[in-house]
Amino acid sequence: MPIILGPNRYGKAETRLVRVTRDGATHHLKDLNVSTSLSGAMEPVHLTGDNSAVLPTDTQKNTVYAFAGKHGVDQIEDFALLLARHFAGSQPAIHHARVEIEEYGWSRVPVTPHSFVRDGGEVRTCVVHHDRDGRTTVVSGLTDLVLLNTTGSEFHGFAVDQYTTLAPAADRVLATAVTARWRHAGDTPSYASSYARVRQSLLEAFAGTHSLSLQQTLYAMGERALRTCEEICEVRLTLPNRHHFLVDLAPFGLDNEGEVYHAADRPYGLIEGAVLREDAPDAAFAWE
Amino acid sequence: MPIILGPNRYGKAETRLVRVTRDGATHHLKDLNVSTSLSGAMEPVHLTGDNSAVLPTDTQKNTVYAFAGKHGVDQIEDFALLLARHFAGSQPAIHHARVEIEEYGWSRVPVTPHSFVRDGGEVRTCVVHHDRDGRTTVVSGLTDLVLLNTTGSEFHGFAVDQYTTLAPAADRVLATAVTARWRHAGDTPSYASSYARVRQSLLEAFAGTHSLSLQQTLYAMGERALRTCEEICEVRLTLPNRHHFLVDLAPFGLDNEGEVYHAADRPYGLIEGAVLREDAPDAAFAWE
Amino acid sequence: MPIILGPNRYGKAETRLVRVTRDGATHHLKDLNVSTSLSGAMEPVHLTGDNSAVLPTDTQKNTVYAFAGKHGVDQIEDFALLLARHFAGSQPAIHHARVEIEEYGWSRVPVTPHSFVRDGGEVRTCVVHHDRDGRTTVVSGLTDLVLLNTTGSEFHGFAVDQYTTLAPAADRVLATAVTARWRHAGDTPSYASSYARVRQSLLEAFAGTHSLSLQQTLYAMGERALRTCEEICEVRLTLPNRHHFLVDLAPFGLDNEGEVYHAADRPYGLIEGAVLREDAPDAAFAWE
Amino acid sequence: MPIILGPNRYGKAETRLVRVTRDGATHHLKDLNVSTSLSGAMEPVHLTGDNSAVLPTDTQKNTVYAFAGKHGVDQIEDFALLLARHFAGSQPAIHHARVEIEEYGWSRVPVTPHSFVRDGGEVRTCVVHHDRDGRTTVVSGLTDLVLLNTTGSEFHGFAVDQYTTLAPAADRVLATAVTARWRHAGDTPSYASSYARVRQSLLEAFAGTHSLSLQQTLYAMGERALRTCEEICEVRLTLPNRHHFLVDLAPFGLDNEGEVYHAADRPYGLIEGAVLREDAPDAAFAWE
Repeated sequence: MPIILGPNRYGKAETRLVRVTRDGATHHLKDLNVSTSLSGAMEPVHLTGDNSAVLPTDTQKNTVYAFAGKHGVDQIEDFALLLARHFAGSQPAIHHARVEIEEYGWSRVPVTPHSFVRDGGEVRTCVVHHDRDGRTTVVSGLTDLVLLNTTGSEFHGFAVDQYTTLAPAADRVLATAVTARWRHAGDTPSYASSYARVRQSLLEAFAGTHSLSLQQTLYAMGERALRTCEEICEVRLTLPNRHHFLVDLAPFGLDNEGEVYHAADRPYGLIEGAVLREDAPDAAFAWE
Repeated sequence: MPIILGPNRYGKAETRLVRVTRDGATHHLKDLNVSTSLSGAMEPVHLTGDNSAVLPTDTQKNTVYAFAGKHGVDQIEDFALLLARHFAGSQPAIHHARVEIEEYGWSRVPVTPHSFVRDGGEVRTCVVHHDRDGRTTVVSGLTDLVLLNTTGSEFHGFAVDQYTTLAPAADRVLATAVTARWRHAGDTPSYASSYARVRQSLLEAFAGTHSLSLQQTLYAMGERALRTCEEICEVRLTLPNRHHFLVDLAPFGLDNEGEVYHAADRPYGLIEGAVLREDAPDAAFAWE
Repeated sequence: MPIILGPNRYGKAETRLVRVTRDGATHHLKDLNVSTSLSGAMEPVHLTGDNSAVLPTDTQKNTVYAFAGKHGVDQIEDFALLLARHFAGSQPAIHHARVEIEEYGWSRVPVTPHSFVRDGGEVRTCVVHHDRDGRTTVVSGLTDLVLLNTTGSEFHGFAVDQYTTLAPAADRVLATAVTARWRHAGDTPSYASSYARVRQSLLEAFAGTHSLSLQQTLYAMGERALRTCEEICEVRLTLPNRHHFLVDLAPFGLDNEGEVYHAADRPYGLIEGAVLREDAPDAAFAWE
Repeated sequence: MPIILGPNRYGKAETRLVRVTRDGATHHLKDLNVSTSLSGAMEPVHLTGDNSAVLPTDTQKNTVYAFAGKHGVDQIEDFALLLARHFAGSQPAIHHARVEIEEYGWSRVPVTPHSFVRDGGEVRTCVVHHDRDGRTTVVSGLTDLVLLNTTGSEFHGFAVDQYTTLAPAADRVLATAVTARWRHAGDTPSYASSYARVRQSLLEAFAGTHSLSLQQTLYAMGERALRTCEEICEVRLTLPNRHHFLVDLAPFGLDNEGEVYHAADRPYGLIEGAVLREDAPDAAFAWE
């Protein structure tokens, strides 16, 4: 029985681009990590090493830098769309492009108009697909947004079997490092505004939900983002449960009423889920 | 328009299990990182925080340790199957279990029969799914297998556009860190034997292929594994191209005929692809 | 010729402590990583395995948690001093204690008085020593403060030898990830105030110095901190030069006047140096 | 009171060098990470930005590559010495050079004489200093050598205070990731042979010592290396205690007689110490 080539893609990962814009003495800064990948009629290169359909990954990197020079960089989704549309039409054999970008935030140091300090918190992300058939998908997101509630979280009434030893918790610390991605339903007028509103929704829902489980919080975060932001149709969340265990201080004659915690590394709970509109359009390749 | 819950799962990630077996003075060691996740009828917990269907992630961790005690650990696929079958039937609301395991290798220090040194090379992996409807999938794999050919690799004849500056290469270093996963077609009689044969196939195909592109090498690796190992039906490979750039020593009056290389970090090429039998059974949830 | 035991210490590293203070509905949060180590008359345990002088590292961990419960945590230097003084007198054989703490910052999410988002920028640090002979040293610091100037940096007029190919730069990007540690001269009245002033000095000196080399910037940072903060007597800085290379866009018919940069990983310049008052007291074991 | 410049050095860190030697069809491979740093009369650059004494870090990188081309690479200590002697005499203002090298091991894939698989275990290291005054020091080492004994380790009879809750252990798992550095007393005839013998000594002493504490094991490792290898005079060891906690399986009706362990991440014990000959020559700057 024959062996065949299945789904495949190739590209240049993690092109580190810093784009400076000089508005007189006032400079602006964009700091990106760009990964591109292309797919299409790639049987020849895989089966015989015929590279005639292969636009080199080095060329993809060059294109990222050239486009940054020519077009500048504002919102990462717009820059990714520009690249994806270019690549998907660039060669006869290349039918599809995927562009993934991470953006690292910087703040101004108010001493000069050209000095910056890197924000260390969450990283803004996007994944854009464009196919030669005209379909385009945009997923925006963030990762490493670390949140913690010192109270307002319970966990009890769970299923119990012969391996269950966990005690119910009436008041616990709830902490997570949010990875969220959200799918745009169509043409979003401003990715900047959309990002700000989704991020704020996630933050407020985490903080504002009295939580009976991290699953409930996950759903509340997704639902809040969808209710607040009409332009998106689906939110996917990955929430590691960063356990904070109350330390038993009784051996030392001390109470510990929710004051002293051990922040544990591994293992950790991991809650993953999607929240979407019932009429969300088909996702196509958006999540690939 | 209503908002609904989409695909979801929850579990305990990265339970670090070391299992010692004592055969008189001779001890045996298994070193695993086990992640379990469960799914099913989980609307209540997401929508209202009703935990009655939720078997705690802490219980999942306990089960991993208890099963290691009760049943021992031999091949990671077998241990994952044991766990997945247990979890998928453990609670009325839980329909499906996914178990992912990483195994770290150790070798004996020949001084005593109880001393070991950790192998630092590749990590063996598996992902097993079991559904209450009876379907089971097993994907085995490895990651961080770092390979390098100092010759026998070319790259030329590629597509060229206005952003192409890459020179063709008639003889280059080819290096990658292999992540490979392979899907078993049915019941594999020995996962130990299968792993050894697949790994050997990958290694030999990488080393033995005169490469015109990393894509060609990828396909050759997948094809070799499939031809050698009847029990598997699909191989998926992720091959970062760890670029080794020949350093220009001419400014110092020196030739550099394939001797001195700069091993670059980022950006890197990234080649991803699947190779499969034309009659491979449906993958179902195997790759999730 | 005999073999002897040289300098040694032992302890518990990276005890992850989160301390919550509940002021009615308003909660406060401290997130620390505490490492303690002890030394003294430790020949017996090394030479014969006689543990009678060894206070277990597990006990050290317990003490960190118990002290957090009993005394609370405000400034990390004060908490480290409390621990170091306790340990150095805790056992006849233990003469000396070293306590190192990292502090991760959190900001409030203004939705509730018990919700927090982790700051991702620099980590605050300290290393405190206390010896049974009464000597105490306090070094405060920070790490991973990432700074970048888009202009105001030159590098030329350097020494040239037969291996030099670098072109002089009249205007370059200067970026670094600051690790700074500063030694207190005596009793500092407020470590909170001191930290804020030193950090601000470092930031302002980096931003405000027209730089002819990263060494000049390093010295300016140390000098500024010393001039601003009387309570410290020495600053040690480690400044990796995070190279940002201007991308050559000429092959694509584009100028690149300080707009498009490749942010490189490795290799990187590394500038290390101390700046101190001429009359700084002896450092003793402060930097160990 | 004046502010002055204290100890300082600058250089290029982590130059990633891969050196191939072609002996007909049989190729040989060296994979290094080289960091150089220089010091000397560096007041002008720090105080005024006068770079005339500064040999650029870019030049240092070039020199590493050029020397690899010109001289080849055999033992890392020899290559570091070559570089250090070159740099320390290269400029009037440069008095001292420090060269640090990490070496990553590779093994042959027996399919071709030009295919290799990277060993993942320990990394070989060295730090070499050379001063214009003629003094040279060589420290060799290794890091990330992960060792584990499943028995033959006890820990009891330790000091107890009010914060001690640890139970004595009559039979425990002992595991560590060895970082060892050893100082050569003079001219070592073969660094290859020396490395092999020291590594073997460390391994055998860890495995062969019935351990009453990790401190005892540390001393035994250092002592064994010194007794076996005349050319070295001091060994410094950093041994994190990778705790393996026996899991309590009693709630599940199971015994756990040294079979099922949780491998913990943090916190961890950390044992550091030096073992040396009583007549070891002065270390000078060897450990800096």
